[in-house]
Order: sequence, then structure tokens, then C-alpha cells
Amino acid sequence: MRGTVLYGPRDVRFEERPEPTIVEPTDAVLRISAACVCGSDLWPYRGIEPIDGPTPMGHEYVGIVEEVGSAVENIEPGQFVVGSFWASDNTCEICQAGYQCRCVDARPMGPEGAQAPWLRVPLADGTLVATPNIPSDDQIPSLLAASDVLGTGWFGAVAAEAGPGKTVAVVGDGAVGLCAVLAAKQLGAERIIAMSRHEDRQKLAREFGATDIVTERGDEGVERIKDMTDGLGAHSVVEAVGTQESMMQAIRSTRPGGHVGFVGVTWEVQLPGMELFFATIHLHGGPAPVRRFLPELVDLIWARKIDPGKVFDLMLPLEEVAEGYRAMDERRSIKTLLRP
Amino acid sequence: MRGTVLYGPRDVRFEERPEPTIVEPTDAVLRISAACVCGSDLWPYRGIEPIDGPTPMGHEYVGIVEEVGSAVENIEPGQFVVGSFWASDNTCEICQAGYQCRCVDARPMGPEGAQAPWLRVPLADGTLVATPNIPSDDQIPSLLAASDVLGTGWFGAVAAEAGPGKTVAVVGDGAVGLCAVLAAKQLGAERIIAMSRHEDRQKLAREFGATDIVTERGDEGVERIKDMTDGLGAHSVVEAVGTQESMMQAIRSTRPGGHVGFVGVTWEVQLPGMELFFATIHLHGGPAPVRRFLPELVDLIWARKIDPGKVFDLMLPLEEVAEGYRAMDERRSIKTLLRP
Repeated sequence: MRGTVLYGPRDVRFEERPEPTIVEPTDAVLRISAACVCGSDLWPYRGIEPIDGPTPMGHEYVGIVEEVGSAVENIEPGQFVVGSFWASDNTCEICQAGYQCRCVDARPMGPEGAQAPWLRVPLADGTLVATPNIPSDDQIPSLLAASDVLGTGWFGAVAAEAGPGKTVAVVGDGAVGLCAVLAAKQLGAERIIAMSRHEDRQKLAREFGATDIVTERGDEGVERIKDMTDGLGAHSVVEAVGTQESMMQAIRSTRPGGHVGFVGVTWEVQLPGMELFFATIHLHGGPAPVRRFLPELVDLIWARKIDPGKVFDLMLPLEEVAEGYRAMDERRSIKTLLRP
Repeated sequence: MRGTVLYGPRDVRFEERPEPTIVEPTDAVLRISAACVCGSDLWPYRGIEPIDGPTPMGHEYVGIVEEVGSAVENIEPGQFVVGSFWASDNTCEICQAGYQCRCVDARPMGPEGAQAPWLRVPLADGTLVATPNIPSDDQIPSLLAASDVLGTGWFGAVAAEAGPGKTVAVVGDGAVGLCAVLAAKQLGAERIIAMSRHEDRQKLAREFGATDIVTERGDEGVERIKDMTDGLGAHSVVEAVGTQESMMQAIRSTRPGGHVGFVGVTWEVQLPGMELFFATIHLHGGPAPVRRFLPELVDLIWARKIDPGKVFDLMLPLEEVAEGYRAMDERRSIKTLLRP
């Protein structure tokens, strides 16, 4: 088969790769129905995250189970499944507490690359969630979104304790930030402020449930949020960018006792202790335990109560994956869906 | 009257000061029954926290109300009261959410100095909690502890979500850390690990409810906690020191999804974003909203269910305050009580 390999900054190739097979008895092999390019794929694409030689890419996927290992009990060939970017056993104490991304046997889904027509998924019973039936084509983008950006935005909103009576601000208008808006709406938040300066993203934020748009950033953005909340700050702030500025903006926009849920990858962030001390906020985040939320998210999508697939504004054949990276890097696309 | 003034590093003087009077109609003036030296007083004493000229010292106090301003309704002369180191109205939205330390009208109790025979307390109705009667002499140390170290350790334990079924580790064996042990016990924690290498403090930790003592620090301390928790880390970790090493020790000792409550003043701490990201823990802390807990703490002390006053291992007449600072600075005393 041909799959996606990153050779260095901005050098994405779609090239011959070995076809995946069952390696461990807990594995499944999927025929990929759709994959996509993640905001976090742009870190190595831009050369900020170093890579160690040619690296297969992609960790978001939906597909049909082709084959399962001898120890797989709950997943079977022919099922349509959604998985997270961490394979997890879903039975250990950490998984049971809802942190499948830190399963004692957690395995990142990066190594073999989901931007390909076939994918091996370890720990299939713990990792994969099957849909009730084969979905119709128009549901595939939303189910794919559940694999990462929706699950991540949802975790951000849950970590920020978005809920009834709360004012929620979302820093970042990428696919994850937009999905955090959708999550805050589903979780019953009273007021949802999307911080965005791009008209197309503002529009989608409103469709997803944003009640207000703030275009200012940094300290000005903080002041705007305070102005809108009697000088107190938002109850809940989702950080979905990962820069020093956006993280401090999130912390400073939060009222004392409020909650910041951070899901942007914080490559270059250093949090100053004293400011964090006097902020008196709750801080929680990291790689999202998407698996915790998958059954609920699949149900909501299946019942057509949410449509997170709208974040995909560019659909490409898988073999044009390099253009997908370029479009996201140049911000011509919020998120690119790839179909084999 | 004579009161305590810090002139510079290790230069504490007990000298003539103006007697406090009612300034605002919401004020009360207390005759101090006992005050003490705080671990945080050692920051400016050691020259780490800069001071701007001679600075009156002390922010922990219990005493008898002498006089109240015309707007004070719930506190009256003759009552024995405990207050926090932040004056707060206890009515604003932030106070009502339990963050009185960040009251919209919060005022630090430092400026006029509680290490003195008399003290003006702003926002008396919101700040002070009266005991049912005048306490007996042996209850005064515990009531004084409630004013800061107990309230702060309690907040640390609550922020770390100590409770039934939880393994709680406490980093720091100062008065606050020891009170966090006591709090974790009261909150029903299953296992309480005190991290201490001082025999006298280990003994008090055990009296307060510690089930285990760990003497290792830094990475070795982290490894010991992991060894004791099936490799996972503690559910709840209280950080009660405030250095870079102790903060990282706390974060690294916490299992994924677990909670760090940090109450040590983080003067020189910088939290690395990526480590925090992948830790997947909850982080909450800062100056404790002691007022939130005071009614409950006063009840527990009044009923003699807890005896946090044991943290005071040196009692001095107020005029010997300079020796109190020296004893704590040189670690000859866990905490020094001062009686006018």
C-alpha cells in the first residue's frame, strides 16, 4: 500500500509502505474509511517538533475492521469503528478513572500512521468503539472528528468544567477550539465566548453554539472577557492553541476559583509560579482521554444531535495528503479530511 | 503600643507603633490573645521577598473584639474571634464561590501587623468568625492555627481532593504540611504519606494521621511514592514548600488524573509546559481561602476533635518575637506562638 511519511520540515511523501498485519493477538487491522491531518501534525511538519528520520503520519481514523487477533473478544471483522490516538486497554485503574491516554499500557497511534488505507490498532478491545451499523457517508466526517478533535475539545470543556450557569471562553478557533464550543453547548453552558478573528471560523463557532465572539487577543482579549463578566473573568476557559501567549490569556481570563482546561500542545510554555499561585484557578489538561468520551460522542453523532464534521472544510483523496498539510499550514483549511 | 517591624534581612524589631483605631465603619479592633510567625514571614526575613522600607509583620491572629465600626452588624465587642490573613466581605460572587482570598474587595492582613497587642481588621463582618464562648487557654493555639496554617493545609488537602479511598502524599513537613496531613485524615483519606526527614515532625505527622513516612526527596521521593502505589502515583498530593524541586516532586508523584493542591508560595517556580501537559494531572492552589473553612474548623477545635495547635513547639512572649523568627529560620522551631 501507499501511506504518508514525513521526511523533514514541509516534506510529506505518499509512498510505498508495508501493509499492516496482526502482530499481537490483541491487534485489529482496519480498512480506513477516512483519516485527516491534525493540528499537532503541523508541529513536526513545521520543524518545531524534531523527528528521528522518516516518520509515518496520522493518528485519527475511522474504518472497517478487516481482521482481529486471537485475543480480541469485543471487536469483530465487518464492524465500523472509531478509535482514539492512544491505544489503551480500558481496564487498568487509570483507564477506569477515565484517563485512557495514560493507560498503564498506553500506546500512541502515531508510529504506523493512519494517513494510509490500512491501519493496525493495538489493544483493539480497549481502543475501538463500534457504531451501531455502517454509517452513511455524510456521518463519516463527524465520526472521524470524534477520533481526536471533538474528543479533545470535549475534554477541554469537561476539564474547564463547562456546564449550566457557566460562562465559558474558548481560546483558539482551530478545529479543537471549535469543537470545545460545541462541547460547552452540549454540556449546557449559559454563555459561550469564542475568541476568533477569522470570519469563517466565527461563523462555525456560532453554528456550534457560541453566543459571543471576541476578536481581541492577549491582554486585550483578557480585558474584553473581564468586561463581559462584571470584571471577574469567565468561570471556564478552554485553551486550544498551546503558545505562551494563549496559555497566559486563558489563565488571566479565568475568575478566581474558575477552571482552565488546556488541550493545546504546550511545546514552548513556561508557567510563572507566582502568577499561577495568585490566579487561584484550577488547571487541568494534556492529551485528551478521548476513549472516555467516545461512546457518548458516537451516540450523539449517530442520533444526529451534533455535527462536528463541519470542521472539515477541505476533502482530498488520500494521495493528495501533501496538499492537505499545506492547506492547514497556510491556514487555508481549518481541517483536512483524507479519503483513501 | 509596641509591635513587630521588619527593617531588612534578619532585622526584626519590637518597637513603638501607633495603636490601631477604627478607620472605616466596617472595621473592628481586636485585643490580640495570640499571634505567630508564619513560614511565609521567612521569605522577607531571609531577603528573598523584597520589602519597601520598615514593614509591620504578622497576619495570623485570634483575639477579643474591643470595638467595632458603625456598619458592623454580626461581630460585637467581647467576642473571641478568629480571622484569616485576607480580609474579605464574604458576600461577593467570588466569596460565595468559596474564594474569599480573592474577594472583589480582598485586603491582605499584612499591612498593619498582627504581631502586636492590638489589630485593626477591615471588613469585620465578612472576615471574622466568633467562637461560641471565650475559649480556655489550651484551645487558643489550635484556634490560632485555624487562622492560617490549618486553613492553608486544609485548602491544600481539599484542592488535592483528599478523601475516602484516596492515597494522599504531602510534600513539606512544616506547619502547613503537617496540618494538611491532619486535614487529609479528617477528610477520610485511606493512606496518608508524609514526606519528612525530621524525626520530631515525623512524630507529629503520625499523631495527625500519617500512615507512612517517606524520607527521600526529589526524584527518589517520587520513586518511593510510585513504589508504594503500584507504580501509579498518589491520587492526591499536597505541595506545601514552594520550591521548584518540591513542586516538580508533587506533580511527578501524582497519578494521571490525580490532583495536586499547592499552597507553598511559589516564588521561584517555573512550570515546564510539556511536562505539565503529559502529566495529565489537576493543579489547584494559591493563597488559601481560609475563611471558607473557618466555621467548620472552629467547630472541630471547639469539640476537641482536632488539635492543630500541636504545631506550635515554641511559645514566647510577644516582645521576644525576634527570637521567634530566628528559631524558625534555623529550624529549631516548627512554628512559634507569640503571646502579648
